[in-house]
Amino acid sequence: MYLETIKSPADIKGYTAEQRRVLAQEMRDALLKRASVHGGHFGPDFGIIEAIIALHTVFDSPTDKIVYDVSHQCYPHKMLTGRVEAYIDEDKYGEVSGYTNPEESPHDFFNVGHTSTSISLASGLAKARDLAGRRENVIALIGDGSMSGGEALEGLNVVGEMGTNFIIVFNDNDRSIAENHGGMYREFRRLRETNGTAPNNLFRAMGLDYRYVADGNDCEALIAAFSAVRDSEKPVVVHIATQKGKGYKFAEEDPETWHYCSVFDIETGALKHPYTDPYQEATKAFLKEQAETNPNFVFLAAGTMGGIVLSPADRAELGSHYVDVGIAEEHAVAMASGLARGGARPIFGTYSTFFQRVYDQMAQDVAINNSPAVFLSVGASLYYMNDVTHLGFFDIPIFANIPNLVFLAPASLDEYKAVLRWSIAQTSHPVMIRMPVGGYEENPYDVRTDYSDLNTYQVVQEGAEVAIIGVGNFAALASEAAALLEKEGIQATVVNPIFLSGLDTALLKRLKEKHRLILTLEDGILDGGFGQKIAAYYGMDTQISVRNYGLSKEFHDRYRASELARAHHLTAEQIAADTLSAWKG
Amino acid sequence: MYLETIKSPADIKGYTAEQRRVLAQEMRDALLKRASVHGGHFGPDFGIIEAIIALHTVFDSPTDKIVYDVSHQCYPHKMLTGRVEAYIDEDKYGEVSGYTNPEESPHDFFNVGHTSTSISLASGLAKARDLAGRRENVIALIGDGSMSGGEALEGLNVVGEMGTNFIIVFNDNDRSIAENHGGMYREFRRLRETNGTAPNNLFRAMGLDYRYVADGNDCEALIAAFSAVRDSEKPVVVHIATQKGKGYKFAEEDPETWHYCSVFDIETGALKHPYTDPYQEATKAFLKEQAETNPNFVFLAAGTMGGIVLSPADRAELGSHYVDVGIAEEHAVAMASGLARGGARPIFGTYSTFFQRVYDQMAQDVAINNSPAVFLSVGASLYYMNDVTHLGFFDIPIFANIPNLVFLAPASLDEYKAVLRWSIAQTSHPVMIRMPVGGYEENPYDVRTDYSDLNTYQVVQEGAEVAIIGVGNFAALASEAAALLEKEGIQATVVNPIFLSGLDTALLKRLKEKHRLILTLEDGILDGGFGQKIAAYYGMDTQISVRNYGLSKEFHDRYRASELARAHHLTAEQIAADTLSAWKG
Repeated sequence: MYLETIKSPADIKGYTAEQRRVLAQEMRDALLKRASVHGGHFGPDFGIIEAIIALHTVFDSPTDKIVYDVSHQCYPHKMLTGRVEAYIDEDKYGEVSGYTNPEESPHDFFNVGHTSTSISLASGLAKARDLAGRRENVIALIGDGSMSGGEALEGLNVVGEMGTNFIIVFNDNDRSIAENHGGMYREFRRLRETNGTAPNNLFRAMGLDYRYVADGNDCEALIAAFSAVRDSEKPVVVHIATQKGKGYKFAEEDPETWHYCSVFDIETGALKHPYTDPYQEATKAFLKEQAETNPNFVFLAAGTMGGIVLSPADRAELGSHYVDVGIAEEHAVAMASGLARGGARPIFGTYSTFFQRVYDQMAQDVAINNSPAVFLSVGASLYYMNDVTHLGFFDIPIFANIPNLVFLAPASLDEYKAVLRWSIAQTSHPVMIRMPVGGYEENPYDVRTDYSDLNTYQVVQEGAEVAIIGVGNFAALASEAAALLEKEGIQATVVNPIFLSGLDTALLKRLKEKHRLILTLEDGILDGGFGQKIAAYYGMDTQISVRNYGLSKEFHDRYRASELARAHHLTAEQIAADTLSAWKG
Repeated sequence: MYLETIKSPADIKGYTAEQRRVLAQEMRDALLKRASVHGGHFGPDFGIIEAIIALHTVFDSPTDKIVYDVSHQCYPHKMLTGRVEAYIDEDKYGEVSGYTNPEESPHDFFNVGHTSTSISLASGLAKARDLAGRRENVIALIGDGSMSGGEALEGLNVVGEMGTNFIIVFNDNDRSIAENHGGMYREFRRLRETNGTAPNNLFRAMGLDYRYVADGNDCEALIAAFSAVRDSEKPVVVHIATQKGKGYKFAEEDPETWHYCSVFDIETGALKHPYTDPYQEATKAFLKEQAETNPNFVFLAAGTMGGIVLSPADRAELGSHYVDVGIAEEHAVAMASGLARGGARPIFGTYSTFFQRVYDQMAQDVAINNSPAVFLSVGASLYYMNDVTHLGFFDIPIFANIPNLVFLAPASLDEYKAVLRWSIAQTSHPVMIRMPVGGYEENPYDVRTDYSDLNTYQVVQEGAEVAIIGVGNFAALASEAAALLEKEGIQATVVNPIFLSGLDTALLKRLKEKHRLILTLEDGILDGGFGQKIAAYYGMDTQISVRNYGLSKEFHDRYRASELARAHHLTAEQIAADTLSAWKG
């Protein structure tokens, strides 16, 4: 076995074509076994094995610098750069992250997880090289799905003027996670059909040189192409056509499902722990009902099936009421504003971590115009994705502080459904909704149907002395802490604000009458968040104390959720104990 | 005079070519007079007069919907859509905003001021039309300078797949504010040189139809082109070559200076109130010194001369140490991260309002990677641009709450210079700097040179009972308020935090010993801002009261700064009076 002997790319530089063929197969076998017991990005890595062998054969990493877009396709790269044990030794599968990571290796240049950044990041490496008078190669590897993102397109334009060594490997497997969307993809198809000779060429239109490799899984053809552009003194794109998921039948046949996988059975391709999320299911049902009954309804997605895993069948059912704009969140938000202005009723859904891309569009295109579009944010919780690049809990300071935008955090399935229904029916406000993660299993109060009386909080239970304000996902935690306090003789008031974007000053004022301690619990960072607004509100009231619970402002990475929660006292036991101790102290 | 008779576009539809020629001249004359006494966007409006006459001749606004990019070229549109008095009656010059504004007219669809949004906004109008089964034309008018922005490029791609009526008028005057940058502009030039026939065509590469109008100031040629695409059932770009500033010699010769103008003398073109900003001047001097002495230094701009009005001569002096990426803030931030990672020392400068575009790039491309790039934010103050689309005071909640990012607010020219010098010399942190607006005229303390001991606040003066924490621009206000209090027998402590991104907990703890009231003053919205962190810090200390001063979370529009400040009690007199009243109460 070659694979286990590879400590660095130098070890493969002298390989023959046959050795490379065997190595590629060994890598596929190892990746398949690992994916089946560890999960991870499947399709992107199986398609790029030959290209990464070729890159490390032709270029001298890390002197030559390869920057990966999204970097979810970096597994073969890690296997060839000193980290192979994490791919062949089951006990060490967890020792590497799923993305490039400079802390692991000098062959990795950036922690990357969002799309469409590689060209721009690498352009900085290239300019730094030029200033320092060095001459190494700088390479950005980017997939076709990422090319629709604004940052990548901006990068192409800038690089097109640089007049220096810059190599873009354009990995075209004719797929985003779902099918691609946008006019450029029709023209990419024509390039593939004409061996790269079709006239409408995005890269040439951006001022770059261009060459085409018809079989991007042919390592020898790739080596020839990369050798031809090595040390190029001007920017050039090498367009390679690869097959996503290559080498595993199920992934080849269904690349959407196999973009990312959890633990599965290799023989049958069946997931070992299939999972459905009640919030996703409720959302899908709601969208389908809207599509059937509301001719002006539109659900917008930006390349991730709306963050709610809409299947091809779901999408077909939505028909013209479903628009996937490709990876283009900025466009999606502005389009939502235009739809609302034009009388349609749009919802744009994506993950909280990707909503980070659209502060300005939410503020300018939507909120200044008070466009009544709806934004559905998925995974805004510490109990969700835990890679440092995919954290969903920075959203409250970002979106709760934009004027005009109503930001709602429902606390149960019933409340979520009610909020969805109200938000699409009303036409007075832009509304962002945090799809719950966790929440009340059974709702302890009658869910209202109308949220147009803005910033009216929900009193879950009336008490005295202590009030616990638990927002959205943490309303249930507030109730749990209150139950523990009750055993100690403290009957706490519990409040679920629902509204993240404003204060219920009438209620807060009323709380002063019978309470001395106010606790706030939020599923997000404390800085700039909800609890600090409450603390500020009571700043001049010396008889009221306020304690904020939430996360510290840090890039928590690959944490265990229960441990992170405990470290921040986000358990009912800790909250109750803190409160009793403050009460006695 | 035709102009004063025009109440709506219907009034010009029957015009002859000669009448249109006369009308265009009348519009130019009126715009010139108005600009000379009122200021405003000059070049964009003088170049687009004929195109707007042609649009309103061919299309039926507001049934047909025209969306303007940036919308700083909308003056001729406003003249033809019922608002002509604001352009011919000097007493009414101030009655319209400088951008499209739905509150003024049904012919305006969005409040717009940031670039590159028109295609995406209009695409929503088009989809809403299709869902409703209507058939009006939807038109986006966008300049070449805006086309490098990611949102516009995303929009082109999406529209390229829409298969419905969508008309893009691409107004190519071969200029951003400064010269254009990026590979696409070389190809646009070839299109102009070949009457639109050159092979590398960005629009066709995005899947759109295309036609070219060689003289975009020839109203009759434009009418013919627009008539040909009217009611088109697929997306099409009409590329028109116009002359920026057409009809005024000085503007034609120096389009950069005349992009925007303040009050001037028509005969000589001389500004009546020329102005230099000491912070800008200090920055320019610093950049030039760095370019001379530090081979790895780079100043990045994104199409607005860095926010510090670097002249062509300044830029030439900076040489290879100056990189303008065009309007592409996302790229600029990621490139800065790459530069820092590659060993260069980058500063990216732009206006606070445009930094809003890059939350995700600052968080992901920069902060997660802890790339020691420097970001210079200009105009982060209520005392700066006051159009609702160009407000600079939303930045604290956005950027002070990103982990790893050191966000500094110096309070004087000396402190600003020291902060600049430290930030570019250190390589441990990404640093964002609020270029001061106002600030101490004479610094009341010795300015430190080293800021590497993070979150160490500056005690401006020691006192007791009351502490006033005035951040950055408002440190001087804190000192003024303290001076007034001193007359009343209260010797207040004054603190300038300098660091917006973290608390000096040692100092805050120490303040508890001798103080009972803490005031915070920040030049920004209160929500999610600096003062709320202080309030939260003291939340459990019942002997301490905290009052936050700053702006309400609203889209304040075209306000008078002194009035807005007073309405928020942001004057030394009000702060002192509030404090005395709290003291007595």
